[in-house]
Amino acid sequence: MKIEDFLRDIPNFPKEGILFKDITPLLLNHEATKFCLNTLASTLKDRKIDKVVGVESRGFFFGTLLAQELNAGFVPVRKPKKLPYKTISASYALEYGTDSLEIHIDAIQPGDKVLIHDDVLATGGTAEAVCKLIEQLGGEIVQVNFLMELSFLNGRNKLTGKEIFAAITY
Amino acid sequence: MKIEDFLRDIPNFPKEGILFKDITPLLLNHEATKFCLNTLASTLKDRKIDKVVGVESRGFFFGTLLAQELNAGFVPVRKPKKLPYKTISASYALEYGTDSLEIHIDAIQPGDKVLIHDDVLATGGTAEAVCKLIEQLGGEIVQVNFLMELSFLNGRNKLTGKEIFAAITY
Repeated sequence: MKIEDFLRDIPNFPKEGILFKDITPLLLNHEATKFCLNTLASTLKDRKIDKVVGVESRGFFFGTLLAQELNAGFVPVRKPKKLPYKTISASYALEYGTDSLEIHIDAIQPGDKVLIHDDVLATGGTAEAVCKLIEQLGGEIVQVNFLMELSFLNGRNKLTGKEIFAAITY
Repeated sequence: MKIEDFLRDIPNFPKEGILFKDITPLLLNHEATKFCLNTLASTLKDRKIDKVVGVESRGFFFGTLLAQELNAGFVPVRKPKKLPYKTISASYALEYGTDSLEIHIDAIQPGDKVLIHDDVLATGGTAEAVCKLIEQLGGEIVQVNFLMELSFLNGRNKLTGKEIFAAITY
């Protein structure tokens, strides 16, 4: 089974000139989803993970599954004003301007072993912001984990020193 | 174990006068999450489910877990312009104005047995819109499934004829 076979190319989404990799055909097939989950967890089987952090919102799909698979708690990192309790936030650059992400202040305890999951590693700005949030709360990042890496965008350069795993690389 | 013990009351969120039930403490505990998942799936064990539909975005958490638990495909229903492929949409009333939800046209095949999951049944407008989307694509709704029902808002009235399950009722 190949994960790539369950991704669909969408030209010019979300804007002109971008070839978007749609993961909904993968989610639609429970065996392919299970296979992808096992691949994402493949380097983590004998390692202690306390929390899996999933990034809004496509990081929620495999993030929740990874947390159950690894017997870890699940933590959503969300866009501003979506989390109801006390939060800290981190900003990241967009093509024009900035955006930010938030995490609940009690989601990570000092010393927690943390797995960060998102669907795509593109320019790395989002993942870098999430790393900052985890480290600000005293968490120890075990791995930054992606369904796919768009290697031509060099996102790894923003995650120096971090263990990075991607199930697929383009 | 009681699911209620893992929910946190947040007064005046998202706006003044609303007592919001925060599910992030539940997600943070993998045993409580597993217990809640088993509760949500408890009436579905021997029934055929082809697709689990999760509603953006808190419906994604247990929606993806339910799909794996029931050996079903997972389908996200999302806010406008978030889904990259061809969609149909349904509108629902808000306190002021309307909003709408979208689903990919190839997410449900005619005759598919469908489980709809969301975190909260409140006024029922969202769930009613999701039911319309599923039925428009020819799906057969087996159950509309919620983590919690706010019974004082009478959302059930908008789901007449549908099987409704809620793990908790307030």
